[in-house]
Amino acid sequence: MKFFNVKTVTETLEVIAGEFRPNRPPIEVSLIDALDMVLAEDIISCEQVPHFARSTVDGYAVRARDTYGASDSLPAFLDVTGKIEMGKEASLLIREGQAQSIPTGGMIPDGADSVVMIEHVEEVGDMLNVYRQVAPGENIIRAGDDVEKGELVIAAGQRLRPQDLGVLSAIGKTRVLVYPRPIVAILSTGDEIVPADKKELAPGEIRDINSITVAAAARQCGAEVIDGGIVPDDYSSFAQKAKELFERSDLLLLSGGSSVGTRDYTEQVMQSLGDPGVLVHGVSIKPGKPTILAKAGNKPVVGLPGHPASALIIFHLFVAPLIKRLQGQELAQYDQRILARISRNIASAVGRSDYIRVKLEEREGGLWAVPVFGKSGLISTLVKSDGMVEISANKEGILEGEIVHVHLFQ
Amino acid sequence: MKFFNVKTVTETLEVIAGEFRPNRPPIEVSLIDALDMVLAEDIISCEQVPHFARSTVDGYAVRARDTYGASDSLPAFLDVTGKIEMGKEASLLIREGQAQSIPTGGMIPDGADSVVMIEHVEEVGDMLNVYRQVAPGENIIRAGDDVEKGELVIAAGQRLRPQDLGVLSAIGKTRVLVYPRPIVAILSTGDEIVPADKKELAPGEIRDINSITVAAAARQCGAEVIDGGIVPDDYSSFAQKAKELFERSDLLLLSGGSSVGTRDYTEQVMQSLGDPGVLVHGVSIKPGKPTILAKAGNKPVVGLPGHPASALIIFHLFVAPLIKRLQGQELAQYDQRILARISRNIASAVGRSDYIRVKLEEREGGLWAVPVFGKSGLISTLVKSDGMVEISANKEGILEGEIVHVHLFQ
Repeated sequence: MKFFNVKTVTETLEVIAGEFRPNRPPIEVSLIDALDMVLAEDIISCEQVPHFARSTVDGYAVRARDTYGASDSLPAFLDVTGKIEMGKEASLLIREGQAQSIPTGGMIPDGADSVVMIEHVEEVGDMLNVYRQVAPGENIIRAGDDVEKGELVIAAGQRLRPQDLGVLSAIGKTRVLVYPRPIVAILSTGDEIVPADKKELAPGEIRDINSITVAAAARQCGAEVIDGGIVPDDYSSFAQKAKELFERSDLLLLSGGSSVGTRDYTEQVMQSLGDPGVLVHGVSIKPGKPTILAKAGNKPVVGLPGHPASALIIFHLFVAPLIKRLQGQELAQYDQRILARISRNIASAVGRSDYIRVKLEEREGGLWAVPVFGKSGLISTLVKSDGMVEISANKEGILEGEIVHVHLFQ
Repeated sequence: MKFFNVKTVTETLEVIAGEFRPNRPPIEVSLIDALDMVLAEDIISCEQVPHFARSTVDGYAVRARDTYGASDSLPAFLDVTGKIEMGKEASLLIREGQAQSIPTGGMIPDGADSVVMIEHVEEVGDMLNVYRQVAPGENIIRAGDDVEKGELVIAAGQRLRPQDLGVLSAIGKTRVLVYPRPIVAILSTGDEIVPADKKELAPGEIRDINSITVAAAARQCGAEVIDGGIVPDDYSSFAQKAKELFERSDLLLLSGGSSVGTRDYTEQVMQSLGDPGVLVHGVSIKPGKPTILAKAGNKPVVGLPGHPASALIIFHLFVAPLIKRLQGQELAQYDQRILARISRNIASAVGRSDYIRVKLEEREGGLWAVPVFGKSGLISTLVKSDGMVEISANKEGILEGEIVHVHLFQ
């Protein structure tokens, strides 16, 4: 009955991709505030970039055919009729046999179709000796080469990187619609958990770790965080605080104690928040099996394992994708993933995905992933790790020297 | 004379690693504010974590030898003398033949050395039937297993990740010394450059791209940004504004025009800011050759290439490492780097590092890097790219199917 809904990692990610989408309407922000946020509109350019043909070198704008055959021994001779200035219109037409000096980025005048580099000419009075021929289009960026009018510049769902903001600047789009940062609320429970700033611990007490690790990881994913604090292992106070946080947030994370009793509370509380209720009850994974995923209304609620290291691994695997989906992003395959060779044999059970914490080492022959062992409750194992390696559910283990994917911790 | 100081990519990174370090004293911040900042002190634990032995399962605390030989057909019989509660001291000693019930995370009482799982026992009145033997230490985390007293928990120079904040919480260290965020000032120059919010462009004008792309990239690296705006191509206004920004910042970026005249200005302005002056004048790289790196007093000043795509590639290669050094970080080799196969042959010149923009595609057989071609002035090429591939200075090119390192754009 309890584990009727155990799923694999892949199945759980399919549930996440299929069930969740942005819950709040997009907001309009200026470009610098849009960094790392997710675009909520397709951006179609109303302009050409550049909107005029430009030189890519310092030199002379010419008609290419006037230079054909030119060489050191037999230069072409052109009349210099003007000097194009940066940022100014090139208003003087270039006719047969004429040239105008032009700086890098300067506007190509009508009549010219190419630029001969300054290194390949000599100006003698008003005459220009051209020692090398150029082809039409040479050393020129044409109008629209960077962005064409009517082109889809960036599609909705793209997280905005510096270069994306750059192309938006180029087309004069200085305000954009983005999805608001999801609000992630975190509630810890456990009679043994005390705030991290408590100086002297009594026997049996331990300081809260999950509140800070999960809050920090959520912020790295672009979320805003509500720290719901710690409640005792008591159904009614847990349920009441969870309900209050659920209403104020887009995604509620419950960091339960790990005892059987607390796990039952967590499940009941998740069911009490609304239908359809629990979607995934346990994941065939190590560490992190007691993970619970529910949907209440259209909001996700996650019951994280209580062990700090397990909680953080489950965050990377499932909560980070949930935050992406709440911002309208697709779930990509190769996020933060690098290849390395595993430094020793590791056994695993078929039917269960194992996540092995690893440290990366550069050795002769490339990058190696060296397992960091330790019980899943130990946060220090994650501190010593650079990332984690998956041994997928259909494998019995991996062999020394085998190439593995390492999911890097940010 | 002009390119007397051209260096390779590796040499330039060696200059950066050797010449620059944090300029400002560390500051003390709370843990959540310390996320992604760089630790300025070695953290030595004054405590053990956990500070008492804990159970990792729900079950019964026992003396292991009392269970030796126990099986389904021949159980061991123990007296249940108590129930350990979460977060409370386990004050009752366990003697020969005794057991106490214990939840996951509960404190192991004196006298006990192991925990037998609830699945392997049956409680009958005050008697416990134990159906499986346990070894000493089984299902227990010992005091200090996670962190030992006197242990170096995190060393100075570490950028603080969620798990690092977690281990600091665990030892009760809720305020830490970190390096302040470096202040990066950006000044654009170019008579053709107009602010991005200008609606109608005159012929010859283009909107500013580098201010936003470089500001955004600097923020992703943990810096604070001063946007110095745009100055005309005129030595005295450029020099005056640069001087003012230099004094307010830890790192000054000059995004010069690309014409010969402007490049000369940029170099002169950089020299005018103080000794030792220009360290690198040109890098043997494509794109980005006209990069200039100077040191004035103990601050770095970088002259970026004017082309937006080149400027951003140079940012990733050299400015991001500078920002790391200003926060006391070492320069790691494998940052943001993944392996893929290149989808076609690409030629390159020996003696020059080429950076090819690529898009990643999942195909049968793994991840492929597909080159995105276009002139280095085109920002749209970066928008279409996921990262870049280096063809190092000692190679004539790369062949289709060859495994390459992709530096991912964030």
